[in-house]
Amino acid sequence: MPCTLLIQNCGQLLTMRSAGSGPLRGSFLQDWELVGDAYLACTDDKIEAYGPMSSLSVSLIGPETQVLDAGGGVVMPGLVECHTHLVFAGNRAHEFQRKLRGESYLDILASGGGILSTVRATRAASEEELLAGALHQLEGFRRYGVTTLEAKSGYGLDRDTELRLVRVAREAGRQQAVRVVPTFLGAHVVPPEYKGRPADYLDFLVDEVLPELRGEAEFVDIFSEEGAFSVADSRHYLQRAKELGFQLKIHAEQLHDLGGSAMAAELGAVSVDHCDYLSAADAARVAAQARTVAVLLPLVPLFLRQQQYASGRQLIKQGVPVALSTDFNPGSCPSKNLWLAQSVACLNMGFTPREALAAVTINAAWAINRQHDCGSLEPGKRADVLVLNVRSYEELPYWLGENPVRQVIIGGQVQPE
Amino acid sequence: MPCTLLIQNCGQLLTMRSAGSGPLRGSFLQDWELVGDAYLACTDDKIEAYGPMSSLSVSLIGPETQVLDAGGGVVMPGLVECHTHLVFAGNRAHEFQRKLRGESYLDILASGGGILSTVRATRAASEEELLAGALHQLEGFRRYGVTTLEAKSGYGLDRDTELRLVRVAREAGRQQAVRVVPTFLGAHVVPPEYKGRPADYLDFLVDEVLPELRGEAEFVDIFSEEGAFSVADSRHYLQRAKELGFQLKIHAEQLHDLGGSAMAAELGAVSVDHCDYLSAADAARVAAQARTVAVLLPLVPLFLRQQQYASGRQLIKQGVPVALSTDFNPGSCPSKNLWLAQSVACLNMGFTPREALAAVTINAAWAINRQHDCGSLEPGKRADVLVLNVRSYEELPYWLGENPVRQVIIGGQVQPE
Ligand SMILES: [Zn+2]
Ligand SMILES: [Zn+2]
Repeated sequence: MPCTLLIQNCGQLLTMRSAGSGPLRGSFLQDWELVGDAYLACTDDKIEAYGPMSSLSVSLIGPETQVLDAGGGVVMPGLVECHTHLVFAGNRAHEFQRKLRGESYLDILASGGGILSTVRATRAASEEELLAGALHQLEGFRRYGVTTLEAKSGYGLDRDTELRLVRVAREAGRQQAVRVVPTFLGAHVVPPEYKGRPADYLDFLVDEVLPELRGEAEFVDIFSEEGAFSVADSRHYLQRAKELGFQLKIHAEQLHDLGGSAMAAELGAVSVDHCDYLSAADAARVAAQARTVAVLLPLVPLFLRQQQYASGRQLIKQGVPVALSTDFNPGSCPSKNLWLAQSVACLNMGFTPREALAAVTINAAWAINRQHDCGSLEPGKRADVLVLNVRSYEELPYWLGENPVRQVIIGGQVQPE
Repeated sequence: MPCTLLIQNCGQLLTMRSAGSGPLRGSFLQDWELVGDAYLACTDDKIEAYGPMSSLSVSLIGPETQVLDAGGGVVMPGLVECHTHLVFAGNRAHEFQRKLRGESYLDILASGGGILSTVRATRAASEEELLAGALHQLEGFRRYGVTTLEAKSGYGLDRDTELRLVRVAREAGRQQAVRVVPTFLGAHVVPPEYKGRPADYLDFLVDEVLPELRGEAEFVDIFSEEGAFSVADSRHYLQRAKELGFQLKIHAEQLHDLGGSAMAAELGAVSVDHCDYLSAADAARVAAQARTVAVLLPLVPLFLRQQQYASGRQLIKQGVPVALSTDFNPGSCPSKNLWLAQSVACLNMGFTPREALAAVTINAAWAINRQHDCGSLEPGKRADVLVLNVRSYEELPYWLGENPVRQVIIGGQVQPE
């Protein structure tokens, strides 16, 4: 049967397939499949077949087949961006100067800046404005080769705005090609209306908001940190979200080692995110839950001028499955450049280029429960594919700050440039 | 008289003009002119006039005038990239893994890798291959808004190849719009043929190569560092280059504080480059030569995982004029992203966003002696202009790793995207 799209002359086809089961851990992070001088065939929105050019059967090519020549370049799955705060109003460029003068993230938060200044702007924005902003950012992500993206709410902190943010994320996903996976992060920080009463705010979320989100958001997330929510409150909240049928995520160990990651992993969270201050003992507890992915965010310490980066090398050695993401948000990381994140993970977290690639594809898919659908080039998965303008995957983290993407294919459709 | 190109609705027009004379120093680095809600008029390849939209005279607009709407975005001079190693063959992605495993730059150099592996590839390449590579990189730089670029030789280390590299840089400048300013860096490292005899190699360059370069390269540069050339040898070489009529540059204080920067400044060098280990005492000697620009290269320590960054804040306080550049090269900084360099200068060198902008425009022009021609928007200068997709200059270093360029104009010509 002829296919609908044939990509030929792939110098290196990175399928990201591996012998392991579950998210890739330990040496499996390195050992994914690379096919030299290969083709990739897609039919409609699905991957059909791949193999060496020498084995390409003429039966795959018909009059309707669109043929694309990779010209010896690297071909790989679309990037999976598994941790963003996509939908917000305004930006915080003015706060950047305060940070440059030495004010800390928590200082700025305490003075009503930080997250809360974005909350004010976001509450004041119309649904149309928020949607336009999200679509603008998604176009930027698509240019970097992101084909699936997780989008958290969390700049509303009241019922209506939080529901609006989830709705906007879903609608943005419908209006363009990049698939958007919404996460509910109503528990981002305590809103002014509940100042000093974090537990009451969490009760409100459970009682008034979570019931509205069934079928709208698959994941419930919480920011467990000094100045946000304690580990005890986080546990109670996640437990109740789980009982309501949500899957769990947590922001933890970003600035302090409080124990949120291990707690959430033991509740069965699909991911524990940040982990810059995760202790080896708690990393072992995360590793014991072979399903929980540690999502590391290397551009955040860079942007916050923090010396401490998650020790990716140590986590990999301990058997924790790891993913990488930008954490795109207006405060601690205004970057959509997931290639730069890979470079910084190699430079400052001890990743190898191969591990970094697994961390932004198949393991990122596991971190948002889309492993059956994207993150690797396997027959039956969505045809989300990148054609790159480099000839070896080793070059990807090497060309610092560059965007190597030549063509983006989403669901079998070649995207406009 | 009608102009040929009118850019209207510039939300912020950054002219970079300032009251100071010479390269911008101290508070002048901050105090350049910003015109809100402005227009910019160009005639042929030159800037004609600018001012507030409210003062725009209808006489500037005729039937031949091309009108471009900035839509409220920032408009600024084209970037001046004042320190690159543009022309080389191959890349060193394979060495990146060695560095990630902890081998140092000087270890790799000593084992025949590093610069010398690029020298082998470059000597073996044809002039056509080198030119194709340079043109490819220049296109990348142009997309980032670079309109003038300095290009060093230095991967030949023999007479014919070094002359070829200068020739290729000049030819690349002729074949596309970005202006290329060649610098002779034959004294990059000691070639294998002169192992252990650095002074003999420098004598050879002075006797056999420099005489061929009159009218071909304006600047002579040397790498003064352990493993390359001593300060005493560097002084002798630069002195003789100066006698032959060349202007001077130096790579110094990148890895050790040896004194090359102050020495070169006192010889009248137009720039001293790297300065990561420059002492306060030597910075004062550079500041005393009010003409010498310190070219800081923030992506190099990032890529080399070096903790020590040039203390930009301290240099500015001491009155040293500073510029910023990528140092684009295959070994210590394979990045063309001069916007990322500005972000890292703000984060890790103490620059403010305003200082960073002066450092990639007017001061970078001073660093390559093109201050009369580019680096600011002044009537009579080349019409090298960027239209950006942000509304405030504060956003530029804030959107980490992003390319804010919407349109590039070189010599009055709007460039294709
Ligand atoms: Zn986050
Ligand atoms: Zn250099």
